[in-house]
Amino acid sequence: MTTNEKIICVREEMKRRGIDALIVLTEDPHGSEYPANHWKFREFLSGFNGSAGVMVVTNDHAGLWVDSRYYIQGEKQLRGSSIELFKVGQPNVPDYVTYLTNILPSESVVGVDGFTMPLATYRKVKKELAKFGIVLNYKVDIIDEVYAPREELPTDEVIEMDPSIAGLNRLQKVEALRKVMLENNVTHYIASALDDIAWLTNLRGNDVEYCPVFYAYMIITATEEHLYIDPHKLSSVISKRLDEDGVKLSLYDHFEKNISNLPSDARVFIDTNSLNARIALSLPKEVVRVEDSSYIGKLKAIKSPDELNHIYASHVRDGIAMVKFLHWLDDNIGKARLTELDVAAKLRDFRAQNHLFVSESFESIAAYGSNSAIVHYSPSIESNAELKPEGFLLLDTGAQYADGTTDITRTIALGELTEEACKDYTLVLKGHIALATVRFPYGTRGVQLDTMARMHLWREGEDYGHGTGHGVGFCLNVHEGPQRISKTDNGVVIEPGMVTSNEPGVYREGKHGVRIENLIACVDDVDTEFGKFLRFRTITLCPIDVRPIVVSMLTEGERKWLNDYHRKVRATLIELLADSSDREWLDKVTKEI
Amino acid sequence: MTTNEKIICVREEMKRRGIDALIVLTEDPHGSEYPANHWKFREFLSGFNGSAGVMVVTNDHAGLWVDSRYYIQGEKQLRGSSIELFKVGQPNVPDYVTYLTNILPSESVVGVDGFTMPLATYRKVKKELAKFGIVLNYKVDIIDEVYAPREELPTDEVIEMDPSIAGLNRLQKVEALRKVMLENNVTHYIASALDDIAWLTNLRGNDVEYCPVFYAYMIITATEEHLYIDPHKLSSVISKRLDEDGVKLSLYDHFEKNISNLPSDARVFIDTNSLNARIALSLPKEVVRVEDSSYIGKLKAIKSPDELNHIYASHVRDGIAMVKFLHWLDDNIGKARLTELDVAAKLRDFRAQNHLFVSESFESIAAYGSNSAIVHYSPSIESNAELKPEGFLLLDTGAQYADGTTDITRTIALGELTEEACKDYTLVLKGHIALATVRFPYGTRGVQLDTMARMHLWREGEDYGHGTGHGVGFCLNVHEGPQRISKTDNGVVIEPGMVTSNEPGVYREGKHGVRIENLIACVDDVDTEFGKFLRFRTITLCPIDVRPIVVSMLTEGERKWLNDYHRKVRATLIELLADSSDREWLDKVTKEI
Repeated sequence: MTTNEKIICVREEMKRRGIDALIVLTEDPHGSEYPANHWKFREFLSGFNGSAGVMVVTNDHAGLWVDSRYYIQGEKQLRGSSIELFKVGQPNVPDYVTYLTNILPSESVVGVDGFTMPLATYRKVKKELAKFGIVLNYKVDIIDEVYAPREELPTDEVIEMDPSIAGLNRLQKVEALRKVMLENNVTHYIASALDDIAWLTNLRGNDVEYCPVFYAYMIITATEEHLYIDPHKLSSVISKRLDEDGVKLSLYDHFEKNISNLPSDARVFIDTNSLNARIALSLPKEVVRVEDSSYIGKLKAIKSPDELNHIYASHVRDGIAMVKFLHWLDDNIGKARLTELDVAAKLRDFRAQNHLFVSESFESIAAYGSNSAIVHYSPSIESNAELKPEGFLLLDTGAQYADGTTDITRTIALGELTEEACKDYTLVLKGHIALATVRFPYGTRGVQLDTMARMHLWREGEDYGHGTGHGVGFCLNVHEGPQRISKTDNGVVIEPGMVTSNEPGVYREGKHGVRIENLIACVDDVDTEFGKFLRFRTITLCPIDVRPIVVSMLTEGERKWLNDYHRKVRATLIELLADSSDREWLDKVTKEI
Repeated sequence: MTTNEKIICVREEMKRRGIDALIVLTEDPHGSEYPANHWKFREFLSGFNGSAGVMVVTNDHAGLWVDSRYYIQGEKQLRGSSIELFKVGQPNVPDYVTYLTNILPSESVVGVDGFTMPLATYRKVKKELAKFGIVLNYKVDIIDEVYAPREELPTDEVIEMDPSIAGLNRLQKVEALRKVMLENNVTHYIASALDDIAWLTNLRGNDVEYCPVFYAYMIITATEEHLYIDPHKLSSVISKRLDEDGVKLSLYDHFEKNISNLPSDARVFIDTNSLNARIALSLPKEVVRVEDSSYIGKLKAIKSPDELNHIYASHVRDGIAMVKFLHWLDDNIGKARLTELDVAAKLRDFRAQNHLFVSESFESIAAYGSNSAIVHYSPSIESNAELKPEGFLLLDTGAQYADGTTDITRTIALGELTEEACKDYTLVLKGHIALATVRFPYGTRGVQLDTMARMHLWREGEDYGHGTGHGVGFCLNVHEGPQRISKTDNGVVIEPGMVTSNEPGVYREGKHGVRIENLIACVDDVDTEFGKFLRFRTITLCPIDVRPIVVSMLTEGERKWLNDYHRKVRATLIELLADSSDREWLDKVTKEI
């Protein structure tokens, strides 16, 4: 079917159900960043495969709303279809709800599959539509009718984490959760985010790309834990171990019905940003809803000393792979024919030499030259640029190891650079160092630290359109909440044990992009008469390219940080490099500046 | 009556009304920072005269909740009474609502005078109490029974602003408001904050200390403006001019009744943080409530070029008064006997020499030695310290002029200082300069800039417990919303035309306090390929004491800023100083460092 044929098919189903407009979202029922193919209806219907975007189909129109990351990709992938592209954030572009209220008469009915819409979004959209007398029907499931052949939900078996790596066992984790439930007078805790469930159960899966999670729901009460999961995913060994730990099993598909039967005096926790509207609205009317961000999310974000040690160890191994790769790149650039896809694959190969390597932790960004100015660029067969011995290669990659998750960006000078590129690189580095070295009082939120990474760019009239830091999971999602370091304030305090990225950047359209990213762990610093102060420990171990640095722009303190960092990278990695030429290369690139 | 006798009196009234506990707040019906004496029931009842604090009376207990600014003053002023002091923010101190839910059985009734409780607070308190089956009755007005003799509401006449100073006339201002109302589909706009009403009508009053506002409410519709005010406050000339401009007059006391009769299809704007619960809850059930922060507040915050020019001019005159005062202080310290109250009075005298001086803009803070470490210290007859030729004098003062409002803090070395004091002073100055010189992209909120003023202190394990900057009115409240620069994010973007304070500080209990405050206006800076950038222009013109500065701690850029600032202060003020010894003094203290 062509895109336009698919849309005709959707309109027929809409007619049959009395729907005037259909909202098609990207989310799976768990608010996952990477949904399984089973849920990729928006991609199927529009042909647009970006990680975010909303499609709307009316009787005579279809539109796709994308943010600035996807303006170019959206245009390309919609070419030839009847779908209009709406560039969210550009002047006079209405959001999709305003668009609907502008064109639909009152009494119209808008449909959405409530499984794909988090409750918080549902409420907002419903309220906006209601202002104009438009109804939102959240039980419109026409995916099966149109999305054919629809891929089944994955049935891959889950595995249990090595107890020596997992840190706390699942009983201890449930106990910690129950303590928070008690404090908040919650009788039934609904766990809906997939990484929350993986963390709590110490199980890992293979249901989506890059994240070792599996499809499931959980309900935890003061005395019971119920795991709703496809039984094919559980080996008899794991079933038995879960049973020993008191975890009761139910079918994934029974979740909606079962929670509609919760006792009427229940006080039920829901996370309105991850739980979908369909499930949330099937709760009995009488129960009290305790709405908050995930309690498990908060517990999970603070890594235990054991977890941190594993994370540090996995970063040593990731550093080895990075050094081998960067050395190889230095040796081959300008000699062999290399493309963006080639270097991404090569880096993957170096990582895969490690016996604890599981997978990449997200789709590699290998962006050469002007491609590096596209913030969320990933090379495709069509875009795949050939590397030349000049300009920047921006490499944002990461790995899942059995004992940790990594995420690192290096911007590498492949040869000659413009003055502007060097200046931009240095400003980004200054911001990176400002965040890496900041001391801050307990109680500080990410938004307060974000400015540290930007202020040097601001001074030159520059800035970047993405966040400075996201939380990183432990053998879990590379993007993990609740903390973040960004212009937006989500109220979450940065606490000791949290692992976050430090990744300022700058992007000049058509010219070059720069980003320098290390992971940082929040640790205790000093106690003074003014209170408790915290700082960050940089976890990532990999040389930062010094060739683009305008040394005169660095303060003495900044130079010292860089030299200290390189000394630590060299001291940690050099003995672990088997190849003497790798050791020589590392020695050379970590020399003092 | 003693405090305890007053409380017995309150308990009798509570019994008569079936109330188990009474909440006594500080606010007037308009959410004012400085209420008229008529509304100072909490102060009357407790004997505590701080600007913030909540009292609770139960049948067998009474408590007062104060924040850290008032721990010491609270203790002192409650001495001898049966009122328990609760220090909000200290570990294990419950807030007053938690206190009530802890001690009261379910089905209890808590009373409050809804005129003194903003709607937003009412909703929060009601919800919390309801969780424990406790009812909140917001119509408990027992002030008249106990507060005797209760001062009448002020009847002072209002005056009209000089049209050459007011900038826009009231018709233009109402037109601007109506535009925002139309965009938000509001049919009836309720103005409740007193400075909003003063701004919109170009009238000024004398009903409370320090702020030239008057008690009134307003309703603005698409075609009409209704001012609810005591008619004694209006001269026949002003009544006539208001009538010519189409402003309809009603009695202040009729407001509650009149808004209970609004048409049922009205879409009524209310600001839940300034409108009191009593009025808000008298709106007809059927009307749609449009709840937001004040539209007038947003219009008022962005000063017009005319207003800014007046503000700049008033700061020149304030600078003259400050220079004369500082010179006088330098000449007299160690020679004459001087107290905190003496110097505050002397500075007032210098300001009052100016023919456009109206009043001080808030209660002067003149804090010597260890008193300067108490953040919101104001000298009283009991605390009044004598100045010696050593240590710091912290002076935070301001004035209302007919053409502008000022607010300035200087920390002055009266003689020898400790090394620690000098270092602290320099760190505060570095933070002040960082904010004064920051360039930032359009869209930035105060919370993002707050860190700039703190980062140098943080690096040394220091911090301060107050905000960095508050909005400042134009011939209006010295604390004006909606923008602020603080650790808390209120979502308000800093826009060109906004006037804000820049006042980092640091306070070492028992030792010394430092604060350096100038007012800053946000202005356009540069447009780059990364967007529009803004900066601040420092408005305040007064030397910053260079004697405590550890010059080696300043960067070259910081030294340059200070020297440039002093050059500007000198160039602007020197010709306006009649006395040659003042000119010589200014010349001396603004020399390059």
